[in-house]
Amino acid sequence: MPSPLFPDPDRLLPADPGTRSIARALYAGVQDLPIVSPHGHTDPAWFATDAPWTNPAELLLAPDHYLFRMLYSQGVSLEALGVASRKGPSKADPRAAWRLFADHYYLFRGTPSRMWLDHVFADVFGIDVALEAATADLYFDAITEKLATPAFRPRALFDRFNIELLATTEGAHEELNHHAAIRRSGWSGRVVTTYRPDAVIDPEHEEFAAALSRFGDLTGEDVMRWSGYMAAHRKRRADFRAAGATATDHGHPTALTADLPQAEKEALFARIVGDSWSPDDAELFRAQMLTEMAALSIEDGMVMQIHPGALRNHNRWLHGAYGRDKGADVPSRTDYVRALKPLLDRFGNEPSLSIILFTLDESAYARELAPLAGHYPCLKLGPAWWFHDSPEGMRRFREMTTETAGFYNSVGFNDDTRAFLSIPARHDVARRVDCAFLARLVAEHRLGEDDAHEVARDLTYGLVRRAYRLDGAKAEAAA
Amino acid sequence: MPSPLFPDPDRLLPADPGTRSIARALYAGVQDLPIVSPHGHTDPAWFATDAPWTNPAELLLAPDHYLFRMLYSQGVSLEALGVASRKGPSKADPRAAWRLFADHYYLFRGTPSRMWLDHVFADVFGIDVALEAATADLYFDAITEKLATPAFRPRALFDRFNIELLATTEGAHEELNHHAAIRRSGWSGRVVTTYRPDAVIDPEHEEFAAALSRFGDLTGEDVMRWSGYMAAHRKRRADFRAAGATATDHGHPTALTADLPQAEKEALFARIVGDSWSPDDAELFRAQMLTEMAALSIEDGMVMQIHPGALRNHNRWLHGAYGRDKGADVPSRTDYVRALKPLLDRFGNEPSLSIILFTLDESAYARELAPLAGHYPCLKLGPAWWFHDSPEGMRRFREMTTETAGFYNSVGFNDDTRAFLSIPARHDVARRVDCAFLARLVAEHRLGEDDAHEVARDLTYGLVRRAYRLDGAKAEAAA
Amino acid sequence: MPSPLFPDPDRLLPADPGTRSIARALYAGVQDLPIVSPHGHTDPAWFATDAPWTNPAELLLAPDHYLFRMLYSQGVSLEALGVASRKGPSKADPRAAWRLFADHYYLFRGTPSRMWLDHVFADVFGIDVALEAATADLYFDAITEKLATPAFRPRALFDRFNIELLATTEGAHEELNHHAAIRRSGWSGRVVTTYRPDAVIDPEHEEFAAALSRFGDLTGEDVMRWSGYMAAHRKRRADFRAAGATATDHGHPTALTADLPQAEKEALFARIVGDSWSPDDAELFRAQMLTEMAALSIEDGMVMQIHPGALRNHNRWLHGAYGRDKGADVPSRTDYVRALKPLLDRFGNEPSLSIILFTLDESAYARELAPLAGHYPCLKLGPAWWFHDSPEGMRRFREMTTETAGFYNSVGFNDDTRAFLSIPARHDVARRVDCAFLARLVAEHRLGEDDAHEVARDLTYGLVRRAYRLDGAKAEAAA
Repeated sequence: MPSPLFPDPDRLLPADPGTRSIARALYAGVQDLPIVSPHGHTDPAWFATDAPWTNPAELLLAPDHYLFRMLYSQGVSLEALGVASRKGPSKADPRAAWRLFADHYYLFRGTPSRMWLDHVFADVFGIDVALEAATADLYFDAITEKLATPAFRPRALFDRFNIELLATTEGAHEELNHHAAIRRSGWSGRVVTTYRPDAVIDPEHEEFAAALSRFGDLTGEDVMRWSGYMAAHRKRRADFRAAGATATDHGHPTALTADLPQAEKEALFARIVGDSWSPDDAELFRAQMLTEMAALSIEDGMVMQIHPGALRNHNRWLHGAYGRDKGADVPSRTDYVRALKPLLDRFGNEPSLSIILFTLDESAYARELAPLAGHYPCLKLGPAWWFHDSPEGMRRFREMTTETAGFYNSVGFNDDTRAFLSIPARHDVARRVDCAFLARLVAEHRLGEDDAHEVARDLTYGLVRRAYRLDGAKAEAAA
Repeated sequence: MPSPLFPDPDRLLPADPGTRSIARALYAGVQDLPIVSPHGHTDPAWFATDAPWTNPAELLLAPDHYLFRMLYSQGVSLEALGVASRKGPSKADPRAAWRLFADHYYLFRGTPSRMWLDHVFADVFGIDVALEAATADLYFDAITEKLATPAFRPRALFDRFNIELLATTEGAHEELNHHAAIRRSGWSGRVVTTYRPDAVIDPEHEEFAAALSRFGDLTGEDVMRWSGYMAAHRKRRADFRAAGATATDHGHPTALTADLPQAEKEALFARIVGDSWSPDDAELFRAQMLTEMAALSIEDGMVMQIHPGALRNHNRWLHGAYGRDKGADVPSRTDYVRALKPLLDRFGNEPSLSIILFTLDESAYARELAPLAGHYPCLKLGPAWWFHDSPEGMRRFREMTTETAGFYNSVGFNDDTRAFLSIPARHDVARRVDCAFLARLVAEHRLGEDDAHEVARDLTYGLVRRAYRLDGAKAEAAA
Repeated sequence: MPSPLFPDPDRLLPADPGTRSIARALYAGVQDLPIVSPHGHTDPAWFATDAPWTNPAELLLAPDHYLFRMLYSQGVSLEALGVASRKGPSKADPRAAWRLFADHYYLFRGTPSRMWLDHVFADVFGIDVALEAATADLYFDAITEKLATPAFRPRALFDRFNIELLATTEGAHEELNHHAAIRRSGWSGRVVTTYRPDAVIDPEHEEFAAALSRFGDLTGEDVMRWSGYMAAHRKRRADFRAAGATATDHGHPTALTADLPQAEKEALFARIVGDSWSPDDAELFRAQMLTEMAALSIEDGMVMQIHPGALRNHNRWLHGAYGRDKGADVPSRTDYVRALKPLLDRFGNEPSLSIILFTLDESAYARELAPLAGHYPCLKLGPAWWFHDSPEGMRRFREMTTETAGFYNSVGFNDDTRAFLSIPARHDVARRVDCAFLARLVAEHRLGEDDAHEVARDLTYGLVRRAYRLDGAKAEAAA
């Protein structure tokens, strides 16, 4: 007989009864606030077409590298889980893939994936037994059936999830057709884009040449010349702003920035587009482009997000066979203090610039990031990211940044996900963990209870709106 | 109606009732022990002249980079807060600066600054409402009025604070007139100095040339020759010992040490004073001088303190406009294992040498510092420092060092502050956090309650007296 | 009157009553499971000869660098503690050494050594008063007397400790006589060896030349040629497997691996055995040999353990006077992401390869090790090691690895000890800390209680048997 599935109403709140009671009250005050999701990777086509999803294996398992990486680590092949390879779609039967997943669901004990999924199963699909081998078919059938109904279409779920704003991420070389279609459709959901120019900035990106060419086509600029290349950025940034974007995003191997003289900059660019660059040139070009993007942000008011420190595609064979984003990106040590100095030397005191810093190297929280954000007016701290977007990871983030940077140099929560159905679960975990942290401060008389309620609301709703300038860039820049 | 200001008697003690009750008993045993402050940056002129302070903006806000850095990070100008620039004193009205601070006091929620200040407001000034916009004037008036009374003069507060010893820090090139005046005055307060030769050791220090020249004048030595330079150090160390110093202090960008042959040492020195040095030379000279200072400590019994790892004046514009110590120093990764080896290879087993190590890189606590201090007889661990001198930071320090180095290779608390009025608050926080840590060990049956009481007293009073040789260097060296 | 010695039955369990009650139930389920000790440094001669030990100073103090390093750090000489030097055995009287230790036992407050020893004193020797100056002789006499009885011989204690398997570690150049004698004796205890080839792989090892020569003698291979050298490894690995080994172990300064072309490999080897190598050559050779060992593991099914990151013999004078393993090894920062890539590029997806990674750099747990082990099928995470084999260290290990790698990419506990009598104490601490961690997850509704019981048994017993292939390599490789 299968175990019941019952996400406890007190989950993630501290065990000590007095502290839990404070946490419950704090959580009650933020539990139902709207979801603002300013950074993520959902597919805008879902909201443009509002087409139904098919089955849990294709919706929940095959696209989620948090899930299949864990199974792969225990010897399960990606093919069997329905993950597409470079040769094309997997030939695995979705039901068989789902059964394989259910067989290995115990691997996720103690992980956030387990907590998110159980929330989705219980709250989104109303399932009341736990996932295991014996219930795999029950799950597959129940979810498949629901997905075919109108209430489980993307837009209906968007409304049900109480999402006030959802930002997707598009490349500088990509069209924004789906966003245009959403606006044309008259649907009230606010789905905006984010300007992510990595593929046209990183010479080591596997799509660099193609992306650059497309970048030129879309803008009509000669992107093989520095001035044309920069003009193309300006044009596309304007396109993105027209599609609702208030932010850019930069996923670089390191946080290095540079501020080269004009002649060196152009010579470097000539080597890059002339395909005669070294790995050091590639790193320097990415570094210089962060400073260029900061300059454009000062012009157009877009907030910069920097996501450094992932060594992408670490598994050579897997990258060859399956391509990018297959759970084989691994963080490495990341310096910020020296890396950001060139950019900060130039723009660090500009009142209208806002840069949100992320890290995969938690040792930088208390040592570098909180001291930087606790001083520079242009710097804010993004929430615990990726491998650290978890109860323990979020707790460490607050414990290691708050005392130096305060709460008000942080920017609320990002779900950063491709898994649309898990968005409420992820925001809920963040709200609970923040309330648990605040409750401990209150219980230890380090923060007044009234203050804690106000902070909880700011961490959930106020800070994200301000940090991402969702009420207008000028208002923020002027404030 | 303003919120009440009431620092809870149980603040910082663990929330679990059983553990809190143990912590209360431990804290009761150390709460009223005298304050020994062996390392800090108060101004000896206060105690020499005993002149009254003026108002809260000038006393508490303008000199405290913990405070104005946070406000600066949120866009408030230093000028408006009353911070002096290179052009001279701020023109801001102190009351207006104080109001601006009160408006932004919410930024400090969850920070130690908030906890220290509330303690000062409540315990030192007897204020019973919280600081906010509505109470800014009440605060300004109440504090200004009290500061004008005899009970709030520096010496009266020194006595009221139950300070047994207070160490200030002076440069090797500075006179010790204020300390001499204190001794001449017949006042019983024990205010001693600390030998801090950074300005005459670090060629990259902005005052290096002037400081070196003054160093020569004060000692009558030819400090442009190696032998004269070292003789000058010996003379000034003797001067400082005569002014009560038992310790030296070295604030270097890294912990690097060196042990060069005599000829290389002199050639390096010639480049340094000949102003023909490279950044590598500067680093090597600082490194060599740590070993030289260790040699002199073996001669004269002074305890060495090494404070490495801050990248000073990170904000170029701000440094140009406002100068040093404006909240723009940022920690960076710091190696100890390889960096200290040259010094330790030479002196690591000398029974009379004592070096107190500090860090801004918490990742070194468990990995490098506790293993080093848990082995070398000459090494001790300084308390959680600067950005880590906070409840969470102190807790991490104990959690990450105790199991390898024990309690007895640590040295008690340093307040390290310029903010004289916050000294009782800072020592109180440290006592509470240590008692909270010990209470957890007792509650988890990892330490007996009697042992915990003894350790609490040692962490508060015994270790600092021994580590800083406050009962005489010979006694310690012989023990 | 001495304090009572009474290790509390609830020790190390969380203080919150509700959580403690969950932890007690979890611990009750694993407390009496057999001990599986797959990695350690006990002396196989003890079990081969079953000769009695003599007294507590020689058995517990002189060989334990955890103990004498702490006393040395406080100025106690190793000679006085009975530690042998390069000149020969210490001349200290064992009773005097023991008294000296008892005088300083307070130094161990809050350390795992204190907790392990108190467990040994109470549970193994039945002593009921605490160790201090006043009880030193009582301890010395009681322990000495018991050690002379049959119940305290090595094999009797092995049985009493409920040890199912104990792995020792021998060098590739060492004979396995004691293991042979154990098997010949007909005694039922399962004592196996582990293949540790460091002395024949690391040119910087002080015994390299002698070990290499012995390696050739034992195998009859020409180990000065690459092919003979590799053939010798194959032969000795087979010898070790015949003596029960299922694993190899590699203690390197870093985790660097390499995958050189055959010609470069042989040229490098020629420099190494020709004694014309640089430090870079030595590092590269160690790196290449990790990849070679992985290749052999794929052939013969032995599990690889990599223990990187200790800078050995940091104290130059002490190493000269007392030799290796005297408490002067210090961890340093350790990179895994780039270091392991060459090996993983070659073998990372081999289904039969299993590598267990250890670290002394906790900053790598969440940043590098959990992401690597949560993806690569060949990688598992060894438990918290050495300086981190402690309650706080183990807690940090679980908190920083579980959310990304899960429980099932970890391998249970290693005691890694030379101190045979402490083995039950060490395993007991690990079981308690794991149950405390699981209890918190249950109390916070992050894990079901039934799941937690299953995980507790897996962490104690199931995972170690699978990870070290104790039921046969083929079964595991096929699974």
